[in-house]
Amino acid sequence: MKRILVVVFMGLAIAAISIRVGRSQTSQPATPGPQFAADGKLVRPEGYRRWVYVSSGLGMSYSQKASDSMQMFTNVFVNPVSYDYYLQHGTWPDKTIFVLELYGSTSQGSINKHGNYQKDFMGLDVEVKDEKRFAEKWAYFGFNSGEKIASASTPGQNGCWQCHEQNAAVEHSFVQFYPELLKVAKEKGTIKPTVHLE
Amino acid sequence: MKRILVVVFMGLAIAAISIRVGRSQTSQPATPGPQFAADGKLVRPEGYRRWVYVSSGLGMSYSQKASDSMQMFTNVFVNPVSYDYYLQHGTWPDKTIFVLELYGSTSQGSINKHGNYQKDFMGLDVEVKDEKRFAEKWAYFGFNSGEKIASASTPGQNGCWQCHEQNAAVEHSFVQFYPELLKVAKEKGTIKPTVHLE
Repeated sequence: MKRILVVVFMGLAIAAISIRVGRSQTSQPATPGPQFAADGKLVRPEGYRRWVYVSSGLGMSYSQKASDSMQMFTNVFVNPVSYDYYLQHGTWPDKTIFVLELYGSTSQGSINKHGNYQKDFMGLDVEVKDEKRFAEKWAYFGFNSGEKIASASTPGQNGCWQCHEQNAAVEHSFVQFYPELLKVAKEKGTIKPTVHLE
Repeated sequence: MKRILVVVFMGLAIAAISIRVGRSQTSQPATPGPQFAADGKLVRPEGYRRWVYVSSGLGMSYSQKASDSMQMFTNVFVNPVSYDYYLQHGTWPDKTIFVLELYGSTSQGSINKHGNYQKDFMGLDVEVKDEKRFAEKWAYFGFNSGEKIASASTPGQNGCWQCHEQNAAVEHSFVQFYPELLKVAKEKGTIKPTVHLE
């Protein structure tokens, strides 16, 4: 009986330690990788606001001609498991998901007098790496504000793909615009030699 | 012996389940609450880039006079446990830590032609809620780029405190500049009635 109690106690102790380990990780949800509808359109990623924040821009444009519409903030997030992999290797594992969130900007509001802050949610752009599904490895999808499934399935070497292939510093990620990720890429030596960082 | 083995197996099964639960939460680290040096200065928070992202601004200023120095991006993060509490209650628990990260901005670089992205890390501003340590509940600390301990201990009703007390929409947090948190405050009815949101 005594031996059984000792064993029970040990089992419970292990369980308790394991639960504590779990809890100490807080409530950042697991990410199952990109999910697709039957027709190949991407299902909108959920919970990405608990993923790892990458960086933000305001009104960024790669065109020579400036836009005359409202400047938008772009907040970029990446799924945590892929971020952990990137920190170790400087490259992105299969099933990586980047979410680029679009917010309208405003300057005058509350006590703010200058500069810009974020106001209305405008949509999502999503980039996924799925080596089995896409021969080109990376694919691009857009979601309007309320859409649950991407408007269109856009795998293939479309405009997004071509630009990321040619200009993104690490694989298809523009780490030249993300200071914390750029440090890692420099340390790991994973920047594409053909890319101009400055 | 058989009974012991059954008990061992049950213990290990519980442990295995617990470990799986832990793993599914990924690797967002625990945050122990604000840490202070013996002289009352705040120890720089570590790992805040894995906390919950709140929002970003660019060149925000509450002064009538526009600044002629470089516009800076401000990225705001909050510790995950406090964020979870906020989602449920619309208010902030004791030991909440907000980190406001400062990055220099640039427009021309790589293929970018317009707008701004983040470049050089410039420092941190940190706001903590610690009800036992501060009679005023909230306190404010600044860190230059490489500093590990805040330059100065600034509890008390200093300029930061006064402005947040008077103008921040929820307790001392400017959720009027954070669209996702503002939604929660509206739903929970926790916006200070004296504050102008627009």
